[in-house]
Parts: sequence; structure tokens; C-alpha cells
Amino acid sequence: MMKLVLIRHGESVWNKENLFTGWTDVDLSETGRKEAAAAGKLLKDQGYDFDVAYTSYLKRAIHTLNAVLEQLDREWLPVIKTWKLNERHYGALQGLNKAETAEKYGEDQVKIWRRSFAVQPPALEENDPRNPRTQEQYRAEEKWELPLAESLADTIDRVVPYFESEIKKTMDEGKRVVVAAHGNSLRALVKYLENLSETDIVDVNIPTGIPLVYEFDNSFAVKKKFYLGDEAAVKAKMDSVANQGKAKKTQG
Amino acid sequence: MMKLVLIRHGESVWNKENLFTGWTDVDLSETGRKEAAAAGKLLKDQGYDFDVAYTSYLKRAIHTLNAVLEQLDREWLPVIKTWKLNERHYGALQGLNKAETAEKYGEDQVKIWRRSFAVQPPALEENDPRNPRTQEQYRAEEKWELPLAESLADTIDRVVPYFESEIKKTMDEGKRVVVAAHGNSLRALVKYLENLSETDIVDVNIPTGIPLVYEFDNSFAVKKKFYLGDEAAVKAKMDSVANQGKAKKTQG
Repeated sequence: MMKLVLIRHGESVWNKENLFTGWTDVDLSETGRKEAAAAGKLLKDQGYDFDVAYTSYLKRAIHTLNAVLEQLDREWLPVIKTWKLNERHYGALQGLNKAETAEKYGEDQVKIWRRSFAVQPPALEENDPRNPRTQEQYRAEEKWELPLAESLADTIDRVVPYFESEIKKTMDEGKRVVVAAHGNSLRALVKYLENLSETDIVDVNIPTGIPLVYEFDNSFAVKKKFYLGDEAAVKAKMDSVANQGKAKKTQG
Repeated sequence: MMKLVLIRHGESVWNKENLFTGWTDVDLSETGRKEAAAAGKLLKDQGYDFDVAYTSYLKRAIHTLNAVLEQLDREWLPVIKTWKLNERHYGALQGLNKAETAEKYGEDQVKIWRRSFAVQPPALEENDPRNPRTQEQYRAEEKWELPLAESLADTIDRVVPYFESEIKKTMDEGKRVVVAAHGNSLRALVKYLENLSETDIVDVNIPTGIPLVYEFDNSFAVKKKFYLGDEAAVKAKMDSVANQGKAKKTQG
């Protein structure tokens, strides 16, 4: 039976400070490293194994994957890195505090930027040092493909074609795939795999560091979907992510 | 100008205990992790950069490479893992203490196993749990290619064709390559690149955690070869490796 396992990276040092991160290449926090190792241990305990791993160009996802592979004793597996699995590009909001941004622009505007389907946040200027077209990290990429800001719709427009042409192809060869990525790049996959509407997907919150397992039938329809691990822990994590946009910081 | 950087992994937990390691997948010691980070820092300080990295299937080399890429802030680079860059397979000697083996078989026999060109150590039995043909780590490989013991000549016979067909090809595309591997797989490359004789190569000791840089002319002849970093430190490390086979342990 064909399966796919998705893992959202654990807490980063900027999640912790409640900042818009996007393509900013911040590392995992100590908590994030523990979440990643716990996800790997969970997969190992439940007998999961993989043949190929995919991740983004961002170190919080790469380090999450490394920790998972270490727990699984599968560090020798091929790992494919691609910016197509990067987090949504948050444009000029990157580096701003979510609660402060909510106070300044209003919770409604932040909610729109964070949770609307097709509205882009303010874009980076071409000469902004955060412009990926001028950053070392993206030097080998097609410049015209790299965004200065993205809506969720834009993110989906790069994640899904990559999934179809690369990851799905690997799965069709009979290989077991794990993907370590980000809230919005994984949301793109969830929408695609579950055929969710544009309104439904904006309310989906994927908890950090909890393996999300999809099982498919022969025609690649989802037969079963579940998170590994304790149900209450999963619920608490989903609520925590949903509350990040509130002006008063309610999460732990 | 075409360059190639080779890095031998830092001290492993078995180097420390003076055991024959070969394909045993032991991790770096704390000292080894520091050596790897120091190698990365040295490369960064001297302005080195890369487009592609190669390493073996063994975690002491993978972790060395990860630490180097972390120092360079290049964790997003493509990393290609292959067993063709694994350490020499030490057959049935794997897991034995070098000094004890020297006491039991004599220093001369150990010297032959460690330093002859074409003599294989005693091979693993087919039903040995260490047989790579039955290990998870090599499940995707061509079984007939996997060794039960290797001489240095055998190691060269798998490293050099891989270098020519894969690494050299990448270099010919104008990509800057770093290789993190092992004493004997790197020795295979050194022999090939420098056109050394079978007697010369057995006396070459590559220090751990010190980047070895090759610069080539247009016809791929070595124009310059040097270790990065302090000369006395390099010399001390070479001597330490050469002394591992002595019955009385003389290294630190």
C-alpha cells in the first residue's frame, strides 16, 4: 500500500519570538530539536521506514529531517532538498513580530495575510537584501521563479507541480517517502491530496513535529489519514498554531 | 581554476578505543565533532565555497560533512551519499582492538593488513550479521558489488570508477566539489589524482579533519596540493594515524 509521511518542522527560534519567518533561514530552538527527535522516535517505534526523503532549503526543515533520520538510523538515505518545499514567502512582513503587526495593522489585516487564500503580503523591494534572487542560497535557481511575496495560492502553485513531477514519481517507483517541510508548503500538499476547497484549507492547522500519515488506494485516493501519537497532544499543538495571529500572545 | 577539497572524518568513538572500524557505522566522538566544525570554519575563513558535496553511507562521514556545511552556512547544498566512498571493508577484523590484534597476530601481520596494497584481511562469513549484503543500509545496492573484506587495491577499484563517472563529471560541469570520507577511500583518490605507485600510497597518512585541497590545470593534472591550516598540527595528526598499528598504544 502506498503511504506518504509529512512532518512539519519543530519550533524555530523565531516561532518562539512570534516573528513572521517565511524564507528567513532561522534554526530550530532547543524545543524544536526535541520535537524533531520525538517525531523520529515515534516513526521508529511504529515501524516506519523510508527510501527517500525530501526537504526544503531552510535549515529548520533540514535539521528536523536530520534528527528524524538519526532516530530511524537512516542517515544514509538519499535526501533531496528543494526550495519548492520552502515555507510561504512572507514578503516584507518577514522579521516582524506577529502580535505587534496585529496591533499596528489590526488583527483582521493580519488574519487576511495569514489566512486568506490568494492575498499576498506586502512584497520585498528588488534591492532588499532578503530578495532571494540576490541571495547565495538561491544562486543556482531560475531567478524568475523566485518570489518576493506569496499568497497561499502562490505557494500551492509551486509545491503541487513539484509534488506531481518529482515526489509522486518517486512514490510510483514503489519508494517510501518522508517529507520534512513547513506549515504552508505542507498545507499545499494537504489541499492537493484531500481535494480541499480554498476556504477549507485556510482553516487547516498542521501541528509541528507530529508525523502526518497518508495511506492511498490504487488510484491514489486517500484511504486513511492520521497523525502519529497522542490525540490530546496533537489537538493542543493545532490550537497553539491557530492562536499565533492574535494580538495578545496566548500560546506558551 | 578547477579545485577539489577532501576531508577525512574526525575521530570516531571506535578510533578513540583503537578498534578496527571499516564499515561499522559508529558515530563521531565529541572530539571528532569539534574537528569537523573546525574544518568547516577553516574553509569558511579562507573563502571556500562549494556547489555539491559527496560523502559515504557511514554516519561519521555524514556528520562530518553536516558540521562542515553548517559552518559554511551551506546546508542547502545537494549532498550525494554513496557506499562507494565508504571506508575500506576490514572484514572479520572489524570490532577488534588494533593493539590486541597486534599482540595476537604480531605487529608485522597487522602492518600487512593495514598497510599492504593488495592483501585482504580475513573475510566475513556469509551468515555474519555484519555482511553488508544482508544489512538494511545496503538493501538498495547491487548485492554482488558489496565486499566481505577489502584490500586497499579493492577499495581503489570501487572508489576510482565512481570518481571518474560521477565526481569528475560534476567537476567538469564547473561545479565546486567537497568530499567528506575516510582514510582509505580518500587514499584511493590521492593515489589516482597524484599518480602514486602502489608502494608510495601505503605510506600516505591523511590527517583527520584537515581540508586537503587540490588545484588542477586545464588537463586535470595536479598543479598544487596543500592542507589548510597550521603545518605543525597537520604533521602531528599524520604521525598519530601512522602509530595506531603499534602494539603499545603511542597516540593520545
